[in-house]
Amino acid sequence: MEKKIVIVGLGLIGGSLALALKGFEDYKVVGVVRRQATADYALAHGVGDEVTLDAAGALAQADVTFLCIDPEDTVRYLAQHRDHFRPGSLVTDVCGVKGAILEASRVLPPEVDFIGSHPMAGTEFSGIEHALEGMFRGAHYIVTPRPDSRPEHLALLERMAAYIGCRDVVRTSPEEHDAMIAYTSQMMHIIAVSVCDDEGLFDCQGFEGSSFRGCTRVADLDVELWTQLFTLNREALSGALDRLAANLDAYRAALRSGDTERLKAKLAWSAARKHRLDLGARPADPYYV
Amino acid sequence: MEKKIVIVGLGLIGGSLALALKGFEDYKVVGVVRRQATADYALAHGVGDEVTLDAAGALAQADVTFLCIDPEDTVRYLAQHRDHFRPGSLVTDVCGVKGAILEASRVLPPEVDFIGSHPMAGTEFSGIEHALEGMFRGAHYIVTPRPDSRPEHLALLERMAAYIGCRDVVRTSPEEHDAMIAYTSQMMHIIAVSVCDDEGLFDCQGFEGSSFRGCTRVADLDVELWTQLFTLNREALSGALDRLAANLDAYRAALRSGDTERLKAKLAWSAARKHRLDLGARPADPYYV
Repeated sequence: MEKKIVIVGLGLIGGSLALALKGFEDYKVVGVVRRQATADYALAHGVGDEVTLDAAGALAQADVTFLCIDPEDTVRYLAQHRDHFRPGSLVTDVCGVKGAILEASRVLPPEVDFIGSHPMAGTEFSGIEHALEGMFRGAHYIVTPRPDSRPEHLALLERMAAYIGCRDVVRTSPEEHDAMIAYTSQMMHIIAVSVCDDEGLFDCQGFEGSSFRGCTRVADLDVELWTQLFTLNREALSGALDRLAANLDAYRAALRSGDTERLKAKLAWSAARKHRLDLGARPADPYYV
Repeated sequence: MEKKIVIVGLGLIGGSLALALKGFEDYKVVGVVRRQATADYALAHGVGDEVTLDAAGALAQADVTFLCIDPEDTVRYLAQHRDHFRPGSLVTDVCGVKGAILEASRVLPPEVDFIGSHPMAGTEFSGIEHALEGMFRGAHYIVTPRPDSRPEHLALLERMAAYIGCRDVVRTSPEEHDAMIAYTSQMMHIIAVSVCDDEGLFDCQGFEGSSFRGCTRVADLDVELWTQLFTLNREALSGALDRLAANLDAYRAALRSGDTERLKAKLAWSAARKHRLDLGARPADPYYV
């Protein structure tokens, strides 16, 4: 029988995943959406091999199910459809928090395997119209398995991640994921919106360069989504922001002191850290096209 | 007689300018460097039509001189070579601060015109090996003329800016420039280094996405250059950082409060500001190749 990847939610990430997974091994890609308009768009643009509004029917035939919806919707969906997922199948998600999702996955019957996923990709846009086949190219694909997750399911996720162009698959615990993401992703979004709260924002046109674009790009964020992500990871994010405030304060003090050598030494220290980090270049950044 | 553009300093910006200005109208591009090795590299790679170590000789024949050296060097150079600049010629610079440079330009004899320039382009690298012909494509070119600057010189700079691919020419006062740049550029660099000062920096590999790359890209900065830029604009930069700290504090408080509606309303407000800003896309960002 033909194998099926079911993608619940064809938004920015789900839509991109449907485009990128097309032709993966002998799987068909089936999109599950709530609105007929989304189904029409998806069919017209080849986002998925099939599209349906019948969630229960699709889940019953899935070998793999990707939940590509907001964190709170994901939590609700797992409970609501706990008896619709096919026994023996793999269920995963794409949320930017993992603790709350793995906790919610306990509602599933023991025959349904769950592994948390977080492909570290996205743009500041949302919706199927902004889906990109190349969205995941060069991105990290993070997985948080449960202790009883089946090795063949992990291996399948790894093959899929490679197929959609991810740079690597990073395996970690939900707690470690949430602590790291508070710093590497959530804090960047708080910085971006805080910079845009500046009274000078609308006077700055004509004076902005690449650093301003890079720092503020994500400020026009999906408000509902990010409110959930920040709230579900409040403790770790607050801690990261406290550390940022302290590090910014140290620079403010060095600047105010008027001691040029002190400022220079501090900059040299920070610049050397960044130099040592060497994140490598992403071959194609879809958000810069 | 053949017209000449003299570029003093063939580093990242001077080198890029020499590449980008090649073929501009009936001008020859002459690079002035201090080290023979730089001259050899420039000649081997076509950075400028001619390259010389004889500053006084080149300046005496220049129709336009671009000083592409650090701010403090620019101040010294203006005084040191005040009698070498050709009477009737235009002298300009490329520094990221303008108040101190315009002040220093008063040393010039009245027959030498000075207009401050700041092409809003660059990468986190330095040196002629990183020069790019496309460096200025889509960037703003800011000019700060003096009250007595000649209109034909302003017009010439505008044609050059268009030739090297700049998006527009923005005319402003040195004071306004320095106030805006404290926010749009200098603050972005302080944010980037502060983020890299985080204790979790070296553990975050595998968890960083596009927002982290965008925010921290410039942290590996030219320490000497940025120490000068920050120091020469200390008051404005300190003010911008104070405003940032207050805006970050407001987000920290909203997050800590646990009031999800308050956080959501705040995010909606900031996101709408960024959405309204609409900086437009740069067609090709050289620092992302």
